[in-house]
Amino acid sequence: MTENDTFAFDPEGNAASALGFSAVGVHAGFRADPERLDMALVVADEPCAAAATFTTNVFCAAPVRVSREHLNEGGAGSPAYGCARAVVVNSGIANAATGEIGLENARKTAELVGEAVGCPADEVLVASTGVIGQHLRLEPFAEGVPAALAAMAKVADDLAGRTSQGLTAARAIMTTDTCPKHGSVSFSGDGIGYPGVTFTVGGMCKGAGMIMPNMATMIAVITTDVPIAAPDLSQALTAAVNKSFNKVTVDSDTSTNDTCILFATGAAGGEVIDEASPAFPAVVAAIKGVCTNLARQIAADGEGSTKLVTVDVLGAASQADADKVAFAIANSPLVKTAIFGHDANWGRVAAAAGKCGVPFSQENVDIDFMGVPVLRAGLPVPMDEDDMLRRFEQSEIDIAISLGAGDAHSRVWTCDLTHDYVKINGEYRT
Amino acid sequence: MTENDTFAFDPEGNAASALGFSAVGVHAGFRADPERLDMALVVADEPCAAAATFTTNVFCAAPVRVSREHLNEGGAGSPAYGCARAVVVNSGIANAATGEIGLENARKTAELVGEAVGCPADEVLVASTGVIGQHLRLEPFAEGVPAALAAMAKVADDLAGRTSQGLTAARAIMTTDTCPKHGSVSFSGDGIGYPGVTFTVGGMCKGAGMIMPNMATMIAVITTDVPIAAPDLSQALTAAVNKSFNKVTVDSDTSTNDTCILFATGAAGGEVIDEASPAFPAVVAAIKGVCTNLARQIAADGEGSTKLVTVDVLGAASQADADKVAFAIANSPLVKTAIFGHDANWGRVAAAAGKCGVPFSQENVDIDFMGVPVLRAGLPVPMDEDDMLRRFEQSEIDIAISLGAGDAHSRVWTCDLTHDYVKINGEYRT
Repeated sequence: MTENDTFAFDPEGNAASALGFSAVGVHAGFRADPERLDMALVVADEPCAAAATFTTNVFCAAPVRVSREHLNEGGAGSPAYGCARAVVVNSGIANAATGEIGLENARKTAELVGEAVGCPADEVLVASTGVIGQHLRLEPFAEGVPAALAAMAKVADDLAGRTSQGLTAARAIMTTDTCPKHGSVSFSGDGIGYPGVTFTVGGMCKGAGMIMPNMATMIAVITTDVPIAAPDLSQALTAAVNKSFNKVTVDSDTSTNDTCILFATGAAGGEVIDEASPAFPAVVAAIKGVCTNLARQIAADGEGSTKLVTVDVLGAASQADADKVAFAIANSPLVKTAIFGHDANWGRVAAAAGKCGVPFSQENVDIDFMGVPVLRAGLPVPMDEDDMLRRFEQSEIDIAISLGAGDAHSRVWTCDLTHDYVKINGEYRT
Repeated sequence: MTENDTFAFDPEGNAASALGFSAVGVHAGFRADPERLDMALVVADEPCAAAATFTTNVFCAAPVRVSREHLNEGGAGSPAYGCARAVVVNSGIANAATGEIGLENARKTAELVGEAVGCPADEVLVASTGVIGQHLRLEPFAEGVPAALAAMAKVADDLAGRTSQGLTAARAIMTTDTCPKHGSVSFSGDGIGYPGVTFTVGGMCKGAGMIMPNMATMIAVITTDVPIAAPDLSQALTAAVNKSFNKVTVDSDTSTNDTCILFATGAAGGEVIDEASPAFPAVVAAIKGVCTNLARQIAADGEGSTKLVTVDVLGAASQADADKVAFAIANSPLVKTAIFGHDANWGRVAAAAGKCGVPFSQENVDIDFMGVPVLRAGLPVPMDEDDMLRRFEQSEIDIAISLGAGDAHSRVWTCDLTHDYVKINGEYRT
């Protein structure tokens, strides 16, 4: 993986890569097209530690409320964590803006899955993505869940078979995504107190439009075989999400259904890792590695996008300032259309940075595109237009701005704004 | 005018409509096309009271700094006001990100205009709009300013001729605008202490893309013949701008050059109006009336737009909450593309409202499109799709959301997000 070379990254990895998990996608019937997978089930072999982060949108969907209720070991106001066995995700209907009936349907979904899997309903998490304001039907779950469990049973004793099957789960949660998003990292326990043990963190996610921090239209299921208790798992997840999913923006909109769930079976073996263990930083780094890779896949697949754009803000007076400027640039329609137009338009980057009320002096600002200086000390640097045009033909665009006001840094990922974004969102009824 | 029926609104009115002003646009040579007007000069017959509001962007342009220096009667940190005689606006080059040379060029422009008009340089205000990062040439001013004064002299004794000529000034400040923007209101002094006196407020502005509060890529010159001192004029201007230009958003980006300048000659006659005068509210209302009308013209002419969109947020717990939710909706690319697609997508409006950290309960939320209920108490209301589609064919779209959390209200104007926005901004080098 590009983020950290000490990990072995597997692009074919997914929610079934870590020991002790099954994951499968089926066509349950939420969507009309019988060829389209529309329900994913992820099941741990045993009840295990789980943690989650959810959308902060006031219009949060019913499954968000119910999953939060099921991960309430920390009590009210605490991050969500607890014990869980399974998560079911349907695509096609978001079960948002559905009132009491929606809550009831989400609860019934958890009951139905719990009965089929053989665990209490409150060990089942639920997530939905798709159209807002329509009621979830339960019949597709009644068909899909047994079918999913039957498929899992066929490969239960075969890790390679499980991992291969896990790819179908990643397909089943897609909405406007153009490709499934998944991956895994493995790392050795040597030198951190777990000699001879290999740990794995794998995951899948969906998300293409309506993406912006605080868990945007994004559903991610991450799994690991690390032995760790739920509160520590929650802490690791929060740290990872803040530097990954919460640093992706496609169009500054946040959705009603965003959910990132992390399970840890401990099936790799060994004593439980806690916050003070020498292995804890490696666990956090591995989770962050998977989350960052998935987050970049989301940005690269932004609706209608042609480019993955990385925005680095350096030299800000504080982390909050750095984040504010990075998002102002990454959310600027003028910057995003300029990138689509292959235009090294530092003026729009400067204007976006300058608008957010963050203190700095324009005389101290430097801007680079793909490492090439275009602004120094607030004044334009003559550029080789042909060379720059060639650099803009790459699929990844890097913008770096240094404010000269301090030491804080923020990195945010986004995509360009294209005709196809307008086409997709001018026609799609959410 | 639609905003206030007690005013007589004249769509042909402009910066030369009030008594004591001349305004003209010429081709000075900032642009290659000799047919295109690119310099506007507005001159008061005598030095008069002036006030201005400027961009809050850190990358503010040189003319912004110089004009602020020239309107510094209130001292550092005060709103900008003082005595002025003229303002010159060029289009084509923004004189932004130009360092010391840019400041020098802006000062020399003021000197050149002052010499030609016959006033000190610090009674001349300057404004520029166009490409960032290029140096302003002074030769076009040397040609354009005498030509403008000669044109003014021809109609000096003819108010109708002055007003007719003022339309050329509105054309000269256009950049990506598809039409000139101007207008005026007149109101009677009867009953407010000025029997038999008619006061006029007129103005012009430019602005199409990169529009968002705190003075976006927007240059406005407003003139009035009301007798009023500069500090009171400044207060009236700030109140008007906060409810008009600062409530327009095209794409959430703010520019480096935004400037709104207001001159008051007092040529209509009568004693000086101050904050305590019975006539003061009428003066504020008239200035606000002109500014609101111009602001709506900007939103309607948003780059590539096909619709003027009015967003009303009702029932917010505070004014700040109301403003935050209104801008979140008005800046949402998903909402704006849905409007382009004639889609009454209340789900995107709800999601935009819910994302901004403003407290309310989804169970209390109502949403209307063009006065038709689409969401009540957080649940969708079945709608007549054909009827709604017909309503979306109108050129003005109204979205209203009630949060049920208090009494505060905010109104913001924006436009839809279209293929042409991407086309214009994917090709135009700012």
